[in-house]
Amino acid sequence: MKMTLSNKMATIVVSLAMFSSANAQNKQKPMVIEEQGSFAIGGTKKMEEGKFELSNALAPQGQTFHADHAYVYYQIPQKARKYPLVFLHGAGQSKKTWETTPDGREGFQNIFLRRMFPVYLVDQPRRGDAGRSMVETTIKPIADEQFWFTQFRIGNYPDYFPNVQFPRDTASLEQFYRQMTPNTGPFDSNVIAGALSTLFDKIGAGILVTHSQGGGPGWSTAIKNSRVKAVVAFEPYSSFMFPKGELPQPIQSTGLFGELKAVEIPLADFEKLTKIPIVVYYGDNIAKQPSKVWNMDHWRSGLEMARIWAATINKHGGDATVVHLPEAGIHGNTHFPFSDLNNIEVANHLSKWLKEKRLSL
Amino acid sequence: MKMTLSNKMATIVVSLAMFSSANAQNKQKPMVIEEQGSFAIGGTKKMEEGKFELSNALAPQGQTFHADHAYVYYQIPQKARKYPLVFLHGAGQSKKTWETTPDGREGFQNIFLRRMFPVYLVDQPRRGDAGRSMVETTIKPIADEQFWFTQFRIGNYPDYFPNVQFPRDTASLEQFYRQMTPNTGPFDSNVIAGALSTLFDKIGAGILVTHSQGGGPGWSTAIKNSRVKAVVAFEPYSSFMFPKGELPQPIQSTGLFGELKAVEIPLADFEKLTKIPIVVYYGDNIAKQPSKVWNMDHWRSGLEMARIWAATINKHGGDATVVHLPEAGIHGNTHFPFSDLNNIEVANHLSKWLKEKRLSL
Repeated sequence: MKMTLSNKMATIVVSLAMFSSANAQNKQKPMVIEEQGSFAIGGTKKMEEGKFELSNALAPQGQTFHADHAYVYYQIPQKARKYPLVFLHGAGQSKKTWETTPDGREGFQNIFLRRMFPVYLVDQPRRGDAGRSMVETTIKPIADEQFWFTQFRIGNYPDYFPNVQFPRDTASLEQFYRQMTPNTGPFDSNVIAGALSTLFDKIGAGILVTHSQGGGPGWSTAIKNSRVKAVVAFEPYSSFMFPKGELPQPIQSTGLFGELKAVEIPLADFEKLTKIPIVVYYGDNIAKQPSKVWNMDHWRSGLEMARIWAATINKHGGDATVVHLPEAGIHGNTHFPFSDLNNIEVANHLSKWLKEKRLSL
Repeated sequence: MKMTLSNKMATIVVSLAMFSSANAQNKQKPMVIEEQGSFAIGGTKKMEEGKFELSNALAPQGQTFHADHAYVYYQIPQKARKYPLVFLHGAGQSKKTWETTPDGREGFQNIFLRRMFPVYLVDQPRRGDAGRSMVETTIKPIADEQFWFTQFRIGNYPDYFPNVQFPRDTASLEQFYRQMTPNTGPFDSNVIAGALSTLFDKIGAGILVTHSQGGGPGWSTAIKNSRVKAVVAFEPYSSFMFPKGELPQPIQSTGLFGELKAVEIPLADFEKLTKIPIVVYYGDNIAKQPSKVWNMDHWRSGLEMARIWAATINKHGGDATVVHLPEAGIHGNTHFPFSDLNNIEVANHLSKWLKEKRLSL
């Protein structure tokens, strides 16, 4: 999409208008916070063989190393609802995902605090402020942002999707890129689910909200811990779990990760997912049938698998809903519906679902 | 220090009492937050040579990489004071440093929000949620916690200093260890000062509060940007800057980093540090004269250098104060006075200083 000068001017005017409305939104009403803080949760510990000597204190012998915990930042508003929302980010992201949006509006952190939910934001093990990892890693400065722009369905770089709910100014895109933060150890779904399950042991019953790659450890956490009272998954992809013997065929895709395979788990585990309400959201600009546009086709395979999965959950007596946002009249969403320009609309949809499921008591 | 069983029981009872008083403290009064959010600030960008091709989107050619920014989380309370406090952590730490203490009490984040200061918490470039680095790095799981226990003057491992203001239960020590998080790129004082200076450009005049290794980039930020209206430095060590020709002799120490050298900078830069009030805090269990106890002697060299430095600042017409907390009647502090058991006392001392310097308007 080429922009004429007058298009550009229009974009600038719209961006400025949005910026001032974002400010107005922030000025709405103060938030009354009963309690806020942070802590590490879960993780493991190792001790090196040998004896620690004060006279040789830089040697690892006899020293300990705590790692693979999650970092959690929480806020409890006044007159809080019963069930907190626990937010888990996706690949290459941190708890920043849920905070201020790239163009400076309020994210789901503030939106749901204002709606009286206790909010827990997680940096998963080996990410962000939970950086200590039991496994060594090397982090390289690899230029990859035009890939993510496309993979995350802002558009097909350098073009934006015509209806996309993502701001078109450079500063917002820069903020979006800068919210990526690397793994400080290999991604390990079990390590993440372990830490999250320990979090629910600490805080009690709550609602788990995941994004993208967080979907996998999210399902595993719900299987591990019955304190997870519901799961809300934004655009999960590679982690749909089916009972033994019911694994669907892989879904072919021109997406850059190729065919999408489902995961087989014991029936007893799968059945735990049928005991709680689950909603899975997908945004816009996802292909309706197989397509050569790889980003649109990647997410087509995800959405198709989500539908097969939800049908399987429901066949086993569960309560899983797949919401394809355009079908619900909400258009233009990227891979980050909760921070897109219309994130209040998306939040409203979720609030309604939570209310229907009696989760916003 | 060996513990008898009744000692242990006493410790447990005291810990429980602290825990419930921490809860009572949290329940005090809600915090009224006018605005809160987060953003990336500063940093650089590179672009790989070549042309980005949608059909080869995993290749770095023609792609960008934004990195070396800081991450900032901010909260502005209702009826906020004029100057915000900007908090920069030390080595191996993140913004967690200023949040909940290891034993679950409120840290300087909440304490100063309750005292009506806008609070900005920074993850410095290449740390925590600001993980993208322009320089490659490898992170290894090296066991080092008994070193840090000792270096940070909780005691001489496994002994606690008898008067230490650090909780003696295992869970608190584990939280303390787990708040460490690795560099995701080499520590670079200029990169950090660059990002911090850009932060002050954005938010306007404010007070910079640094810890330990944050001291160096802190002084550099104050030199770069006159919007830094004051600096509060907790236990800085290796980064005292003197004008050309006035460099003091290195201070010998049995500390594990050996002799402490000062840094020479142009007079014109140094003079910028004489235009603002500065206070430097040190805790307890620092040797009074050269000692073979390496942790106590390491910090002796830091405190001595701080005093020479403050005298030099003041000789040039500046206003620098070194507060050795035990001399001010505040005993038992570790390298983390702002999260020690008596952190309210430490905060009170700082509040008084801010008031005297007309910084709490």
